[in-house]
Amino acid sequence: MATLDAVLTTIDANIDASTQRLFDLLRIPSVSTDPAYTKECQRAADWLANELKGLGYQAEVRPTPGHPIVVGHAAAKRKDAPHVLFYGHYDVQPADPLELWTSDPFAPRLAQGKDSQEIVARGASDDKGQLMTFVEACRAFEANGGLPCSVTFLFEGEEETGSPSLPGFLAQYKAELSEPALALVCDTGMWNAATPAITIMLRGLVQEEVVLRGPSHDLHSGMFGGPVVNPIHVLAKVIADLHDAEGKVALPGFYDGVPELPEDIAKQWSALDFDEAAFLAGIGLTQVGGEAGRSVMEQIWARPTCDVNGVVGGYTGKGSKTVLPAQASAKFSFRLVGTQDPKKLVERFRAFVLQRLPPDVKAEFISHGASGALNLPFGSESLTRARRALAEEWGVPAALTGCGGSIPIVGSFKRDLDMDALMVGFALEDDRIHSPNEKYSFTSFHKGARSWARILAALAA
Amino acid sequence: MATLDAVLTTIDANIDASTQRLFDLLRIPSVSTDPAYTKECQRAADWLANELKGLGYQAEVRPTPGHPIVVGHAAAKRKDAPHVLFYGHYDVQPADPLELWTSDPFAPRLAQGKDSQEIVARGASDDKGQLMTFVEACRAFEANGGLPCSVTFLFEGEEETGSPSLPGFLAQYKAELSEPALALVCDTGMWNAATPAITIMLRGLVQEEVVLRGPSHDLHSGMFGGPVVNPIHVLAKVIADLHDAEGKVALPGFYDGVPELPEDIAKQWSALDFDEAAFLAGIGLTQVGGEAGRSVMEQIWARPTCDVNGVVGGYTGKGSKTVLPAQASAKFSFRLVGTQDPKKLVERFRAFVLQRLPPDVKAEFISHGASGALNLPFGSESLTRARRALAEEWGVPAALTGCGGSIPIVGSFKRDLDMDALMVGFALEDDRIHSPNEKYSFTSFHKGARSWARILAALAA
Repeated sequence: MATLDAVLTTIDANIDASTQRLFDLLRIPSVSTDPAYTKECQRAADWLANELKGLGYQAEVRPTPGHPIVVGHAAAKRKDAPHVLFYGHYDVQPADPLELWTSDPFAPRLAQGKDSQEIVARGASDDKGQLMTFVEACRAFEANGGLPCSVTFLFEGEEETGSPSLPGFLAQYKAELSEPALALVCDTGMWNAATPAITIMLRGLVQEEVVLRGPSHDLHSGMFGGPVVNPIHVLAKVIADLHDAEGKVALPGFYDGVPELPEDIAKQWSALDFDEAAFLAGIGLTQVGGEAGRSVMEQIWARPTCDVNGVVGGYTGKGSKTVLPAQASAKFSFRLVGTQDPKKLVERFRAFVLQRLPPDVKAEFISHGASGALNLPFGSESLTRARRALAEEWGVPAALTGCGGSIPIVGSFKRDLDMDALMVGFALEDDRIHSPNEKYSFTSFHKGARSWARILAALAA
Repeated sequence: MATLDAVLTTIDANIDASTQRLFDLLRIPSVSTDPAYTKECQRAADWLANELKGLGYQAEVRPTPGHPIVVGHAAAKRKDAPHVLFYGHYDVQPADPLELWTSDPFAPRLAQGKDSQEIVARGASDDKGQLMTFVEACRAFEANGGLPCSVTFLFEGEEETGSPSLPGFLAQYKAELSEPALALVCDTGMWNAATPAITIMLRGLVQEEVVLRGPSHDLHSGMFGGPVVNPIHVLAKVIADLHDAEGKVALPGFYDGVPELPEDIAKQWSALDFDEAAFLAGIGLTQVGGEAGRSVMEQIWARPTCDVNGVVGGYTGKGSKTVLPAQASAKFSFRLVGTQDPKKLVERFRAFVLQRLPPDVKAEFISHGASGALNLPFGSESLTRARRALAEEWGVPAALTGCGGSIPIVGSFKRDLDMDALMVGFALEDDRIHSPNEKYSFTSFHKGARSWARILAALAA
């Protein structure tokens, strides 16, 4: 343990420099969904490859049909050491609505939070801050004789848009990327600010955009209002019909493959003593919505959803405009659990929409990705070692949790590389990821790096 | 009739100069609903006052709480001549969506249309082109010895936002403005390109904006999706519930005060032999929507409506964003007929929305105006003279029609000044008012000016 102690001391001693490096990465507005930021995504990839090279590792920025992927390789100091693949993503969500940020989303700053300092910037928590915890752990090992495990780095730039290029990339470089025995994924959260977590269930994600078109052009609502079909009304009917009065998704067959929670998991989760009222208060709410009779935790970790993420049609500027719109559109997302089939869901959803169209309204469907849910094996040797390492850093056992979000790459690792993934992350519930004023706890960043140092040492022990 | 013939000859001889003057007015982007264009509204008012002064008339640009109103006075050549008030509006609708215009909406141009040249610009038909037909008729009289009627001009700049300042303005200047015996309003359409029309029924208009707010900020749909209420879903339910399966408005009490069409009007309208299929084809549709069993003409002229003119919530940019939105909003408009009460409707609508809100969703209501329907007296002496004058210009009798749009000023004239209004206009169904590529037929502009010359002469005969 002498080396590990030295590594942890190095992390502590250099945390300010580590923070400045993270700030450099946060200054790059690598928004993957918006073509206006394509060059910034390239810049973030280049920056990461240079960081790895600076540590003496092999690193390349490799093109994909979308944003590039960074692949790096670092050899352990011992030849017989285990080999892991570390995954993170350098792309971020759009920063809008910009007016709700209290400072420039791409000018990172340290602010005093409730219990810890906070790093405020788009991507601070999702996922640049998390990704850099691992890089900084590696840096500390290099200052103390080298890594205990061989590491293959995989940093992608399309996680926020459903990782469309990844499956092809994994296929292309399968021989190289399937060499590690285990994937380490840092894109999840802690149970709370004091309790680390390992995520063992991930929801899948299907994203569908629908554009409904009626009249050939916008019309005056006085001269034409009455006999003319209004695409906004048709779209509203579709959206309204998607849930029943009990908050269940009303799409036929939607719950095929949705299991009830296993008793042992239910018991462990109930022991976590989740504070629903505090959770709701933190987002300005007082009541549990969604499926009647299901707890917040169960709904987020283990139940599927259907949500409209955006809707637009007609005149949306200031004041009023007496217009009958020619079109209306909405972006839908479905969170999947158990063995729900993403392809079948897309078919059923499209049929559901088409069934509700009057004769003169046509639908265009745009797919933004579809991936199923993932349930990870419980109680493997690496999971046991990682839990122990986390307990040593944080002083309490790591919770085994579900995660409402999707990490499509974890499915790809399983499917394409036959590789299990250990999902350990240090994000907190109130990190405002995808929202204005995203932040990452400075404690998460610092103890995150220390946690990875301990996990790498434990995996190699 | 010698003078009238000379006046008509003058109009014909100077039509190119008249067109250039209209173009000058069309170049001013006087969009009343958007505060960014406040100065342009002032500029349009100044331009009109200068035109009137150029004809030797008294004219002033008078302030209001909103955009200014132009008032002008011109004396007839004979002391005992009738006195009329002419109304038009210089404000226009927003030009967006800009990308659907084939040329700059505020760079007017002449284009070759199907049967006539067309003046293409925002406001060409609604209402700058119409307003200028009257001004050009007056100009021709001035070149031939003077006006047959005394004229008070009233040009407002808030018609497209429901004329909020007009009632107060009419009250303030009641003595001055109630002197004329009859209002002439040029903001309506022809029956078809060959048949002029006088409008005797106008629908009222109620405009309400609703903003629904749920969570305190936008949330990640993975981390929060399920138990969190989605304001878009709530809004969609409100919109969907507003119509029943038969296309009727489902707001309780909505049809109080809605009369069935009188038999004589129904007979006259049926004789107009309206081509529903052609009407629908012109806007890219094949089926009559709206209230089941009601004709297109009846629905537009004599039935009330509820339409959403705009809706927005969540992420509406390119690609996808897995966000649960904090708010969603929609702009609603109601067209009123008969004696439907605008105030009661607003109350009922707001109650209808509030009844559909789950505990954690709050509604903000923004009123954009409320005015009732208007039915004008049938068979008065001025109506008879105007019909005859129009028949002389166009060679066919003028149709007596309804109008689906609202002209709140006509209600104010009746209510505040006890003045009937003669609504004569030369817009055509395919003028694309409120839509991209708005146009005004050059024939409407030319023969419109000739029509007003004949009407003024007929009223004074």
